[in-house]
Amino acid sequence: MNNALPRNLVAEIVARALAEDLGGRGDVTTLATVPAEAAGRFRLVSRQHGVLSGVEAATETFCQVDPAIEVDWLEGDGDVLEPGRIVAELDGPAASILTAERTALNFLGRLSGIATLTRRFVDAVAGTNAGIAHTRKTTPGLRALELQAVVAGGGVRHRFGLDDAILVKDNHVAMAGSVGEAVRRARAYAGHMLRVAAEVDDLEQLDEALGAGADSVLLDNFDTADLRQAVMRSRGRGVTLEASGNVSLETVGAIAATGVDVISVGALTHSAACLDLGLDEHVS
Amino acid sequence: MNNALPRNLVAEIVARALAEDLGGRGDVTTLATVPAEAAGRFRLVSRQHGVLSGVEAATETFCQVDPAIEVDWLEGDGDVLEPGRIVAELDGPAASILTAERTALNFLGRLSGIATLTRRFVDAVAGTNAGIAHTRKTTPGLRALELQAVVAGGGVRHRFGLDDAILVKDNHVAMAGSVGEAVRRARAYAGHMLRVAAEVDDLEQLDEALGAGADSVLLDNFDTADLRQAVMRSRGRGVTLEASGNVSLETVGAIAATGVDVISVGALTHSAACLDLGLDEHVS
Amino acid sequence: MNNALPRNLVAEIVARALAEDLGGRGDVTTLATVPAEAAGRFRLVSRQHGVLSGVEAATETFCQVDPAIEVDWLEGDGDVLEPGRIVAELDGPAASILTAERTALNFLGRLSGIATLTRRFVDAVAGTNAGIAHTRKTTPGLRALELQAVVAGGGVRHRFGLDDAILVKDNHVAMAGSVGEAVRRARAYAGHMLRVAAEVDDLEQLDEALGAGADSVLLDNFDTADLRQAVMRSRGRGVTLEASGNVSLETVGAIAATGVDVISVGALTHSAACLDLGLDEHVS
Amino acid sequence: MNNALPRNLVAEIVARALAEDLGGRGDVTTLATVPAEAAGRFRLVSRQHGVLSGVEAATETFCQVDPAIEVDWLEGDGDVLEPGRIVAELDGPAASILTAERTALNFLGRLSGIATLTRRFVDAVAGTNAGIAHTRKTTPGLRALELQAVVAGGGVRHRFGLDDAILVKDNHVAMAGSVGEAVRRARAYAGHMLRVAAEVDDLEQLDEALGAGADSVLLDNFDTADLRQAVMRSRGRGVTLEASGNVSLETVGAIAATGVDVISVGALTHSAACLDLGLDEHVS
Amino acid sequence: MNNALPRNLVAEIVARALAEDLGGRGDVTTLATVPAEAAGRFRLVSRQHGVLSGVEAATETFCQVDPAIEVDWLEGDGDVLEPGRIVAELDGPAASILTAERTALNFLGRLSGIATLTRRFVDAVAGTNAGIAHTRKTTPGLRALELQAVVAGGGVRHRFGLDDAILVKDNHVAMAGSVGEAVRRARAYAGHMLRVAAEVDDLEQLDEALGAGADSVLLDNFDTADLRQAVMRSRGRGVTLEASGNVSLETVGAIAATGVDVISVGALTHSAACLDLGLDEHVS
Amino acid sequence: MNNALPRNLVAEIVARALAEDLGGRGDVTTLATVPAEAAGRFRLVSRQHGVLSGVEAATETFCQVDPAIEVDWLEGDGDVLEPGRIVAELDGPAASILTAERTALNFLGRLSGIATLTRRFVDAVAGTNAGIAHTRKTTPGLRALELQAVVAGGGVRHRFGLDDAILVKDNHVAMAGSVGEAVRRARAYAGHMLRVAAEVDDLEQLDEALGAGADSVLLDNFDTADLRQAVMRSRGRGVTLEASGNVSLETVGAIAATGVDVISVGALTHSAACLDLGLDEHVS
Repeated sequence: MNNALPRNLVAEIVARALAEDLGGRGDVTTLATVPAEAAGRFRLVSRQHGVLSGVEAATETFCQVDPAIEVDWLEGDGDVLEPGRIVAELDGPAASILTAERTALNFLGRLSGIATLTRRFVDAVAGTNAGIAHTRKTTPGLRALELQAVVAGGGVRHRFGLDDAILVKDNHVAMAGSVGEAVRRARAYAGHMLRVAAEVDDLEQLDEALGAGADSVLLDNFDTADLRQAVMRSRGRGVTLEASGNVSLETVGAIAATGVDVISVGALTHSAACLDLGLDEHVS
Repeated sequence: MNNALPRNLVAEIVARALAEDLGGRGDVTTLATVPAEAAGRFRLVSRQHGVLSGVEAATETFCQVDPAIEVDWLEGDGDVLEPGRIVAELDGPAASILTAERTALNFLGRLSGIATLTRRFVDAVAGTNAGIAHTRKTTPGLRALELQAVVAGGGVRHRFGLDDAILVKDNHVAMAGSVGEAVRRARAYAGHMLRVAAEVDDLEQLDEALGAGADSVLLDNFDTADLRQAVMRSRGRGVTLEASGNVSLETVGAIAATGVDVISVGALTHSAACLDLGLDEHVS
Repeated sequence: MNNALPRNLVAEIVARALAEDLGGRGDVTTLATVPAEAAGRFRLVSRQHGVLSGVEAATETFCQVDPAIEVDWLEGDGDVLEPGRIVAELDGPAASILTAERTALNFLGRLSGIATLTRRFVDAVAGTNAGIAHTRKTTPGLRALELQAVVAGGGVRHRFGLDDAILVKDNHVAMAGSVGEAVRRARAYAGHMLRVAAEVDDLEQLDEALGAGADSVLLDNFDTADLRQAVMRSRGRGVTLEASGNVSLETVGAIAATGVDVISVGALTHSAACLDLGLDEHVS
Repeated sequence: MNNALPRNLVAEIVARALAEDLGGRGDVTTLATVPAEAAGRFRLVSRQHGVLSGVEAATETFCQVDPAIEVDWLEGDGDVLEPGRIVAELDGPAASILTAERTALNFLGRLSGIATLTRRFVDAVAGTNAGIAHTRKTTPGLRALELQAVVAGGGVRHRFGLDDAILVKDNHVAMAGSVGEAVRRARAYAGHMLRVAAEVDDLEQLDEALGAGADSVLLDNFDTADLRQAVMRSRGRGVTLEASGNVSLETVGAIAATGVDVISVGALTHSAACLDLGLDEHVS
Repeated sequence: MNNALPRNLVAEIVARALAEDLGGRGDVTTLATVPAEAAGRFRLVSRQHGVLSGVEAATETFCQVDPAIEVDWLEGDGDVLEPGRIVAELDGPAASILTAERTALNFLGRLSGIATLTRRFVDAVAGTNAGIAHTRKTTPGLRALELQAVVAGGGVRHRFGLDDAILVKDNHVAMAGSVGEAVRRARAYAGHMLRVAAEVDDLEQLDEALGAGADSVLLDNFDTADLRQAVMRSRGRGVTLEASGNVSLETVGAIAATGVDVISVGALTHSAACLDLGLDEHVS
Repeated sequence: MNNALPRNLVAEIVARALAEDLGGRGDVTTLATVPAEAAGRFRLVSRQHGVLSGVEAATETFCQVDPAIEVDWLEGDGDVLEPGRIVAELDGPAASILTAERTALNFLGRLSGIATLTRRFVDAVAGTNAGIAHTRKTTPGLRALELQAVVAGGGVRHRFGLDDAILVKDNHVAMAGSVGEAVRRARAYAGHMLRVAAEVDDLEQLDEALGAGADSVLLDNFDTADLRQAVMRSRGRGVTLEASGNVSLETVGAIAATGVDVISVGALTHSAACLDLGLDEHVS
């Protein structure tokens, strides 16, 4: 599945990251110690088991620092890595490669960390029909890349942001008076190209949301018995059921076994540890 | 200690985060379900133990969405939170507060997560003189805020980026021929206002770095016996010793006990889990 | 219905418009002829029948030129205007008001022109259930404001851009081999929060699209007999039917009478004439 | 005549247009349905009679989406088109071409619409010396491209914005006390490189403006008798006479026949309908 | 004469200047040494004779750093300063004032330096009709402010940049074949709202330029005898004569005495020394 | 020594400079007079003695205007120029070269002026150990390029801005109570990667600063006798001594002879005259 991002979008994120690291003088260490004319060959190597993501951002980073850097990727987004696996080979001005190193690794480490954690959740629900979805609990400014990483890890897409789908949550319900009323208002507003989802706290609210015409219902903090009930009640109504709330690698399998369609996991983006990758000089 | 960031810098980061979430239509859920004129009172509440950070960014988020939102902070950056602690009270147009909620929480959650993890490392070295420092393994585009969070958690500052201090690492040493030569080049380049630090792999390289005039030496992956040796050898030479490499909450105490001045911990920023905070409606 | 746009978004569009008009020296005519300290009272007056839109952008324009300008709106987005109707009263530094005049009027004229044309189409389908929707044939850089104007005129929303809904068109069908295959691929890609629409050229393709699970079908250039057929065939299948292609004020009523749900009209944004509004000095 | 725009300026306008359409996920329809490796050949075809404009912006659009797209223009800005005329041939990754399609067409349609309407006015004054000029009633953010389109249609340039020429209008006259006084202030302010034009409502004001040294006089809403009077009175005084106000294709010929030098027409940019162009797959 | 610049333009220049100085951590010296809550009163004092300019940029600088800073200007753009003259009084958070100090002084020093040098040239031509004009030899990125400073010093405006007037120079003449041909092409291109100026090297070229209809002629490196000849030859032809080339304070008086209308002086902006102003604590 | 700046940083500064000069229409003179297809060969020639700087910015300027321009540099940053020396040869579209000319020359002239003045100060201290350093009295927005020019002229680097080193000045001392207290606070704040410098007014304050642990002391307005005293007192304490205040080409030699390490000279950047360079057509 084609998972590429708009080029300008990636370029802009990378430009900001480089500006932050290079400041007004650039990489003074490399300027001081590495001759401008020295060529270098390096290898991007994984130091852990995991799933790769961030290839577009890393490529763009090397290119913005110096278009003379050649990057040859041996692995792509979504590929499984083990310790020692060579991910890419780099050839070009050594000074430029060292200057770009940390920023490129910061993208790869964070995004591969997200892909890796996603894959673990996906593996934990293997054999069920449940998809593992991201939430909006992403790093400010990096959402596009982080959702790309979730997909690289085998996850499924949720709404991107506040403006591309309607998701009625508890505070909206409070302001509208009831789940049913909130969904009806949403339905009227949505037109024919926006989905309407509603978060519910119990089976009663589920019935109300279904009655009001929600396309999708998010079952928040339901126990597995209630999840099963929810699945039964909405069977054949063309509605998507999503479970959420305190989902962990320990609990996700049982949740998936209830028959829900989607399980959304905030931790995918808000609490994934970076995957450790490094840049080694390549003495051929 | 005053830890404020430049206003324009925070404003720019927040503007990008909001643009990402609001797209071209804004918060369609809230527009559909919450009357424009409805006022609301909400409370930002911690749901975990931790240390707060991100107050500037969260304040700016609410302000950019709607200057009519009033935010009253009961806790500040660096304050310790426990589950249920009210962090802030918000008053204003309910629609605006709900629109800003997730972005504000994304800042607070990530930055408080970093502050919280930093505090745990700081506590683990209590009674020693070692400072806990960040690295450059930060989220692209958020470094300023993340380093602020490290300081809020009790950590100490390292260099901000590539251009404000010299840090000779293994790849620079390889290109320059030796640690000594690399430090000498750095020294000549640095002028009188840039520090020169060098990463070394063993005690021999330490001696070489000291002889060449490094201000600070980063002892990479030394065992505690070698760290103690390093401390003894450099005593009275006016140099800062920094330990790094696979530092964990389990090992950091023993590392600190060797007498090193600083311990740098990549995990502070690259692998901290978010702190869980939420927005509750406040029925007074 | 709340139709407000994100503040930062409007501010950025207005800032670009002002930069374009003011260049590096500003309004040299006003600087030359109007004393800086002169106060002025002006009225924004409609010179035609129409529907107002652009109030947010115009307000922001005056505010960016000079926050001392007070704008008191007597009419709001969606209100019907006739010649001579006073839309707003302005009070403040005369020089600033004159400097902002043209840019504010350019926003109001264009957006009110769109709202006005939309209203004429909406009126022409009165008594049917058909909504009048915009397309993506908008002015580059102004889409958010132009879609707001369509809604102000009584129109309904379509997808905002390429990334918030799937709409399979003829060229996609050609690349995928068939409508059915294209819709299946789209369905698999979409996840549970993106709608899948497909454009079809005849009733056979309609059946194929319905069979593959499209949420919405766009009936392109169907005559009214085929539209009626389409409505009958898809009854009870929970799918939205949209008519498009060469829709005019003359034909739209008959199209709506076929029972389609939505009629999309490119002309709303690509060919609306501006509504004429002017700024008159107000001698009280 | 060379009519090219600064490259950075066009690039910036196109980048904004693409960002608006592509959002944070890009063209999800094409990503879902078109294989990344599929090549495509397409033709840009005119579906109406008209005059082409927008070649620079459309080229830049395809290039920003994917530099691998090759665009071969068979027609250029200012060329006359008829239905079915092939304007350009495109070769390259099919997915990229489809992603860029709408944005490129939006530029071409709007700008060609302006060039086309301009040409109709220009043709209507054939045989006279009157030039057809644009006004500042342009689309916010697109002025540079729209004025380029006016020139492509055979029109003549007026001032670009508020800062590159002085144009005294009624509200300035009101603040300065009289046309004469306003022109004198303008003259003193202008220096030797800015033109001074003045708008007048009657022949008396014309005399006043001429006496005060205006370089150009804009005769607002004069009937043809008064226009002829104005031409006679200002003969030999080295002043440019411009007619404006409610100029239509019906009236413009008679206005031009009075001998005025320039006729400015707001409708060129504020009310031109788009020219219909389309992208067809090219099966060779 | 009103000499104000567009607010957004000044804000953008100031934002860049502050970003450059504050980097990712802000003013670490002040953060370390000045308590956040300390109030301060300071005076902006001139340490030299000169003419003030830069008030808008300096005000904006203080405001962007901290809106709580109150600035009370005792002198304005164009006012004459002597050593010790208090230019402004500042009240507010001491830390904020110190952080803004250098950037504000950099604007004031550079712009006042330009205003001061301009005033010296203006004084040197007192009693003649010659205006002292700037050129385009300005600091990249600061042209708007620098031209404002020239006007503050009593100078007159030339064209702002390449797009707001035509100035045919030697290289254009070389490409067009002759001054006459270049001016004719320019005349045809210009329309009625752009001035056409031509640079000439001798009296023959002057005649050619006048014959071709130049509005203004720039006499480059003419000696005073030839300047007088030029003034005589063009008398009564409604053309502006401008002298340029190696104009110094020693020579400018004699040049002005020849009767030329304008003398353009690159040194005003490319070689003015800064005026020395300082910020003193104010112990009342 | 490698003195290159980050590519994106230079690109952004150049883009702003071009936008300022080209406005919304570009170089109307060249568009009018030079055929688009004409090729040209030009030479960048120095008209004065001096030291070159600005090669990166000038190259980027030509490239942004038109990538088809080929620039062949015969001299590089830091090279000594005399009148008539050919600095670069340019080949490409004549129109593009002329459009870029002034902006490129503005960068080269200003930056070479700074390099030239720096070299004069450096030559004046030949035979001593004193380095000539810049200050923060730079042109807003151009600091990175101006400091590069100082280094090209043989100068040494000081801190870049407020955030990369601590420099306690008189106003900080006043707020902290004493030099010693201010330095102690700074020391505590600095961590191990930021230098702490302090400005002192007399020998007593010098002792206080040394006692508090300053890395560097800035001796402000000391006479040479006191400078010598300061050098003696701080011998062997590992501290850098910097002299500043009213340093001129006449006095700098005597100051350097006192044995101070660094002499900082604001005039390098705030008062250097531009170096005169020009673009000549090259008739081969």
